Amino acid sequence: MTFVDVSSVNAFIPGQVELDAHEARMIEQRDRLLGPAYRLMYQKPLHFVRGEGVWLYDPDGRRYLDTYNNVVSLGHCHPDVVEAITRQVATLCTNTRYLHETILELADSLLSTVEGDLSHMMLTGSGSEANDLAYRIAQVRTGGTGVIITETAYHGITDAVSKFSPTLGEGVPLGMHVRTVPAPAAYRTGPNVGERFARDVESAIADMKRHGIRPAMLIVDSLFTSDGILPEEPGFLKGAVEAIRKAGGIFVADEVQPGFGRTGSHMWGFQRHGIDPDIVTLGKPMGNGQPIAGLLTRHDVVEEFGRSSRYFNTFAGNAVSCAAAAAVLKVIKRDHIMDNARNVGAYLLSQVEALRERHACLGHVRGAGLFVAADIVTDQESQASDRARTTQVVNAMRENGVLISACGADHNILKIRPPLIFSRENVDLFVDVLDKALEL
Amino acid sequence: MTFVDVSSVNAFIPGQVELDAHEARMIEQRDRLLGPAYRLMYQKPLHFVRGEGVWLYDPDGRRYLDTYNNVVSLGHCHPDVVEAITRQVATLCTNTRYLHETILELADSLLSTVEGDLSHMMLTGSGSEANDLAYRIAQVRTGGTGVIITETAYHGITDAVSKFSPTLGEGVPLGMHVRTVPAPAAYRTGPNVGERFARDVESAIADMKRHGIRPAMLIVDSLFTSDGILPEEPGFLKGAVEAIRKAGGIFVADEVQPGFGRTGSHMWGFQRHGIDPDIVTLGKPMGNGQPIAGLLTRHDVVEEFGRSSRYFNTFAGNAVSCAAAAAVLKVIKRDHIMDNARNVGAYLLSQVEALRERHACLGHVRGAGLFVAADIVTDQESQASDRARTTQVVNAMRENGVLISACGADHNILKIRPPLIFSRENVDLFVDVLDKALEL
Repeated sequence: MTFVDVSSVNAFIPGQVELDAHEARMIEQRDRLLGPAYRLMYQKPLHFVRGEGVWLYDPDGRRYLDTYNNVVSLGHCHPDVVEAITRQVATLCTNTRYLHETILELADSLLSTVEGDLSHMMLTGSGSEANDLAYRIAQVRTGGTGVIITETAYHGITDAVSKFSPTLGEGVPLGMHVRTVPAPAAYRTGPNVGERFARDVESAIADMKRHGIRPAMLIVDSLFTSDGILPEEPGFLKGAVEAIRKAGGIFVADEVQPGFGRTGSHMWGFQRHGIDPDIVTLGKPMGNGQPIAGLLTRHDVVEEFGRSSRYFNTFAGNAVSCAAAAAVLKVIKRDHIMDNARNVGAYLLSQVEALRERHACLGHVRGAGLFVAADIVTDQESQASDRARTTQVVNAMRENGVLISACGADHNILKIRPPLIFSRENVDLFVDVLDKALEL
Repeated sequence: MTFVDVSSVNAFIPGQVELDAHEARMIEQRDRLLGPAYRLMYQKPLHFVRGEGVWLYDPDGRRYLDTYNNVVSLGHCHPDVVEAITRQVATLCTNTRYLHETILELADSLLSTVEGDLSHMMLTGSGSEANDLAYRIAQVRTGGTGVIITETAYHGITDAVSKFSPTLGEGVPLGMHVRTVPAPAAYRTGPNVGERFARDVESAIADMKRHGIRPAMLIVDSLFTSDGILPEEPGFLKGAVEAIRKAGGIFVADEVQPGFGRTGSHMWGFQRHGIDPDIVTLGKPMGNGQPIAGLLTRHDVVEEFGRSSRYFNTFAGNAVSCAAAAAVLKVIKRDHIMDNARNVGAYLLSQVEALRERHACLGHVRGAGLFVAADIVTDQESQASDRARTTQVVNAMRENGVLISACGADHNILKIRPPLIFSRENVDLFVDVLDKALEL
């Protein structure tokens, strides 16, 4: 049997709606073969057999506009990435204990996207492994173990990282060395979020020290994705970064979600804030679906770790994953993907914003590039979260062929995160379907 | 600059030999772009541009017999796996929050290789993530944190798993909740390794409890790869498994190295011992190079974890990696790969064994299927480890076009681990080159 998990955003809960026979059988097989820990999305789960560009297709040939999956940020089955993988997988797929060109080319183009002293790239197999490695490096670098995160953060699922990923739910306890601070939401708390955030980080540090815990790192998703997508006031992270450094810790920018051009204005979310992280972690869209992730760091940060711990990861840095990631970077540049994210993102934001006039349940709308958030509320006056309606909207859109999900502590924030090749026509379709879903 | 790391087996140490200009430039680029934590193999590192079957090719077209890389256990660029990846990557690459057929087919064929109550497959992106997930499940299942491992074990590189991977070196401290036991080496200690191993595990449990640590798991590579490859006396693990269960912990069989038919006699190393693990972790050869790993477990072991923690891993279970792994299982069956591992492995073992007559430095030789170990010693009488000569042999073989490496606490054990498609002709070439290297 499948466990009911009411804490998981937009998870399938068995028994709520009637399923087609084929999907019901697949769900039964999943429960039997994959066990009780896996979750499906939507009240009526989806079965896909093909993807192309912004579209996913079910077995009946019905297409769904993918406005959610940021892994395939260049679109499903992007021809350049498919070609790079197809070519490399037939030629060579080996590891970093031998010399090969592709990893060096990848490092060179990736490091050319950052300023300052970030001079090294290290590769992992997932964003979780990247944040886990960042934490290992931070501990060696600082001699500390303490971690500061935002209240509704998600950084991954390894044993260590799950201890600083509160969105995994109350069944996964935070570490005793972990402190949380409220995410900086100007639209709810008013201006001066930077000062407030810095003060909260300082309090967390003081509390940590009072408990004999030495700070290792402050880690934030620079777009605060799981906290509700908070792009306001570029620059507000500066004070917090200064505070953690003053306490002997390092600052890690988790770019697994905001990175690779999604914000349109910058390649990386942290660049919007004019700060220089000690470590930048990378993931999801890095290989447009091919497993590859990693981090960028300065020499002095990783020097002692390199000496004492060394690093080898069997799959990470294999020639095929490197070829995919190199192709992604090439396409982002060649096809002016960031311009598209900026222009189409601005159009998407304005069109969703425009719906507020006609829908009292649409609260605050905000975004950066092709990452847009919209609060679903009981009314625009009180701004009170309406989780039930959010679930209804997400599932109504799925019924009408558009995929999104929700996020935030109250599970009431629409998470709109289409591929970066999204067009104005795609936006029009999206807004039309959203409009209808908000009428329910 | 590259750090000298004398503790790492068979690592490149700068300045020892003269390098070709092209390789010297690539190494300089690696140091600059990848930083100080990466290591290369061999006194004179290798640069590969192409792989096919048992061969790897350098830029000059020189070919090397690959007798080491177990990730590509069906051989480099195996046509069936290349085709499966090529087809799937152009069709769909999405995650486990939607239904797709491939993951179910994979689970079904993987679970058909194990007996008993192992009924669920969970996927990860690496063997490290698999052992990390096993540890998370073990903690929820047992309420404990204690881990028992062998003295020279390697289980991976996440923060949690590195704390129970002593081969990472003294720069990476073991966890305070971790206890080590000597690996069962009958050829050094005499018979009754099973009794002794069980007694050592019992002592470790007692010590753990005395320190207020509740046991979570005993985890062993069932072929004790990093401890020196110890295939003797099938069955000797039974007592230790009973001991950990009696203490409330679970038994995890780490099949990342011995699994997928390598031993020839069984699909999984633990099956040689007639035991039923609570969790079986899988990795390296699972996708013949495509990143995919995971674990098999019983329903009751993962039930509470499924409820309290749930599980989602962005890349793990993507359709492309599942297609690669499904192709691997198909080829193992269709092409009678295990028969080949058994037959050619026996021939390899006998031929290496035969060299002992002519080489006093060749100590104990042992193996299971296509996994063979040979101790390099000062003389056969004393059996004293000869690390310097081992390094010399490994590097002389590399010079003569054959790739192997070394393992064991004293770094004096030749680690011979060819693809499972290895032929008798390949063995003859291997033995010829080994013969010459041992003469030095």
